[in-house]
Amino acid sequence: MLRKIFLKYLPNPSKEKFLVGVSGGKDSMALLDLFYSEGFQVEVAHANFQLRGEEANLDEQLVHTYCRVKNIPFHVKRFDTKKHAKESKTSTQMAARELRYQWFYQLLAQRNLTAVALAHHRRDNIETLFLNITKGTGPKGLQGIPPRGENIIRPILEATPEQILQYLEENKIPWREDQSNSETYYQRNKIRHLVLPLLKEINPGLEDTFLQNLERFRNLNLIFQEAHREFESQIHNYTIPDSLIQSTKGIALHLEVYLKPFGFTYSDITQMLEISESGKKLISSTHWLIKNQKGWTLLPVPEKTEIDVEIPEPGNYQVGELKLCIQQIDNKDLNFKDKHTAYFDPELIHWPLRIRNKKEGDRFTPFGMKGSKLVSDFLKDEKIAWEERVRQLVLEDQKKILWVVGLRTSDLCKVNPSLTHAIEIRIISD
Amino acid sequence: MLRKIFLKYLPNPSKEKFLVGVSGGKDSMALLDLFYSEGFQVEVAHANFQLRGEEANLDEQLVHTYCRVKNIPFHVKRFDTKKHAKESKTSTQMAARELRYQWFYQLLAQRNLTAVALAHHRRDNIETLFLNITKGTGPKGLQGIPPRGENIIRPILEATPEQILQYLEENKIPWREDQSNSETYYQRNKIRHLVLPLLKEINPGLEDTFLQNLERFRNLNLIFQEAHREFESQIHNYTIPDSLIQSTKGIALHLEVYLKPFGFTYSDITQMLEISESGKKLISSTHWLIKNQKGWTLLPVPEKTEIDVEIPEPGNYQVGELKLCIQQIDNKDLNFKDKHTAYFDPELIHWPLRIRNKKEGDRFTPFGMKGSKLVSDFLKDEKIAWEERVRQLVLEDQKKILWVVGLRTSDLCKVNPSLTHAIEIRIISD
Repeated sequence: MLRKIFLKYLPNPSKEKFLVGVSGGKDSMALLDLFYSEGFQVEVAHANFQLRGEEANLDEQLVHTYCRVKNIPFHVKRFDTKKHAKESKTSTQMAARELRYQWFYQLLAQRNLTAVALAHHRRDNIETLFLNITKGTGPKGLQGIPPRGENIIRPILEATPEQILQYLEENKIPWREDQSNSETYYQRNKIRHLVLPLLKEINPGLEDTFLQNLERFRNLNLIFQEAHREFESQIHNYTIPDSLIQSTKGIALHLEVYLKPFGFTYSDITQMLEISESGKKLISSTHWLIKNQKGWTLLPVPEKTEIDVEIPEPGNYQVGELKLCIQQIDNKDLNFKDKHTAYFDPELIHWPLRIRNKKEGDRFTPFGMKGSKLVSDFLKDEKIAWEERVRQLVLEDQKKILWVVGLRTSDLCKVNPSLTHAIEIRIISD
Repeated sequence: MLRKIFLKYLPNPSKEKFLVGVSGGKDSMALLDLFYSEGFQVEVAHANFQLRGEEANLDEQLVHTYCRVKNIPFHVKRFDTKKHAKESKTSTQMAARELRYQWFYQLLAQRNLTAVALAHHRRDNIETLFLNITKGTGPKGLQGIPPRGENIIRPILEATPEQILQYLEENKIPWREDQSNSETYYQRNKIRHLVLPLLKEINPGLEDTFLQNLERFRNLNLIFQEAHREFESQIHNYTIPDSLIQSTKGIALHLEVYLKPFGFTYSDITQMLEISESGKKLISSTHWLIKNQKGWTLLPVPEKTEIDVEIPEPGNYQVGELKLCIQQIDNKDLNFKDKHTAYFDPELIHWPLRIRNKKEGDRFTPFGMKGSKLVSDFLKDEKIAWEERVRQLVLEDQKKILWVVGLRTSDLCKVNPSLTHAIEIRIISD
């Protein structure tokens, strides 16, 4: 039965050569033996994560012996998984997974092999589906473990663990019990030993039902992917048009899938669909999503140097990549044409000054106006691009914002023509 | 919180008038009170299925009292559920469901109401999703309980049972414990009390995760439905073109959904996709699906009267709706032009004869040919329509088929010109 499933997946030994990932456990030993006994050309990759001491070495030895006897090229690599996990700030389990796949793909390239063959089976697949649903999933996770991935094949994905065990016994294939103790392992055990038996009381044919479910969900994902490609084809310059949002069925799902790589989540999408007012924005760790007249535009969070420098008295200051030159000058030397230079009434400035990034809620009284205004509104009205706005600097004294740097001074400390002197502040970029 | 969920669903009392289905249990009493306290115009429908004797009457009384006090029109109907279940050969539970919905829709029409409001909540929905997946589902079942159906609204579908209980306690609303003991009730209890707690150990935020899952799956279903409408729009005259099958992503799912109402199942579709040979067919209880040059054509199973009549000797016989007249005639009276009349050599016929529907494997030697041929192949070659073929009658004697009725006699018993007599058999339709 296992052989039949295998041969349905891989009808005949082609000229393709596969890399079989073999841990030494039941599933991968059966898969390896199928490849070998059906005359396929394979090489074997065994990853030793060095997480279980002597046990891991015995696993390695078992696989190595099998390969030596059958004359199958055997690759082994020992990983310092814990160190890698620490370095890349991830779980041991994720690190092991990452290291393993990286190495597999390396071997494919080096040895000129077609694909990695992995020994996932039907129960793995059902468990994965349940874990995905339990942890929250969309169309992709609903398919469980796909039968084929990029350079990955899973020839016995339809087989049950019972069929695999039967094959091992009938063919006297050695194997070693998996000794994993990862978190997923515990979660899978819970699903396998506690949840699935309960569901089997409701539907005794659960395994077959799930084979059908998974097949349907795979097709459903294909259908979704096609609709999603069509959706994405209508997004240009990272702007999602309002018209597209209004006319697309199941829009929230398309938006979630499209925006996920940019760091936006389900609840961002929910918010997004309730906003119609231009100028609103949603923020992820890497991107902004800004509502404008046409729709929603994605922008990378502008790089912004944190600036906050105190200026106790006139003089020259280095502020990030800028130079600030502050001096008292004669009123007759004023040159209002240079936007990088501003002039103030010395008597209306309360030292020390401070130059910093603008922040939420900053207000000032723009030159020529009576009332105060939010700096953010001022910037919008001046049609300053979003990526510029976030980097905007303001100069303040002890009481007020003196200058939205490079754009507009405050009306509250403008040069007094009856005085002979003014404070000149110049910004010079390197 | 419950009120907030309700008002998010139904922002303000419109002129629409709803029918609230109220069992007297927690959920429906809370829903009814929300409608009432928010000033909506409603009427109440309480179905008494008479399955739980006095308990059911106490439920009815509770709802009736609430309505009388608040001056809400109250409709009650007592059903003989067990009798109905027996009559329509269904489970008590399905019968109750059917009776209830039938009556609700009747009331909507009679009382000129907009929709039935039902009190399903979030846990019902999660349980339904789990039951659907456990029993096998496609895109429709993945959505769980839809927030809106045809003339159905579910204003508190997002609420948790805890929120409902809190509402009842805070507002001192009376309710009675549901005493259902249906099969689904046991299955739901298993999911609720045994399965979900296990999954919560994996994901403590399970309820919220599922609210998101269900929302995604609803959108996924909308996306599928749109693709499916496009798919169906390319099917004309019940023929699914091969080109459509080859070019459609996730085709098996589209075929399954399209063909389900015609009685075909998942495994029929699997078979179908492996067949490329014209003339093959799949059979459901109501339909045939026939592979031809262009694709697959759906046909209702032709109505066919079972015919199997023995004819011991010449004479007149009633055969279904046909009359059969058999007599010996003079050879000079032969009239080969009438296809409803056939002639045979009396010496080559072995009485008694038998007229019956053709069956699988029938062979005969067509007039003018040497070898024998499958009757089914003969009919195909004669380009007889499928629906005719299934009804085709054959006349046989003790040894062979004499006549594919109305089409061709056997070469093995053709009239012998050296004899003076022949057997004439005429078919006369009423």
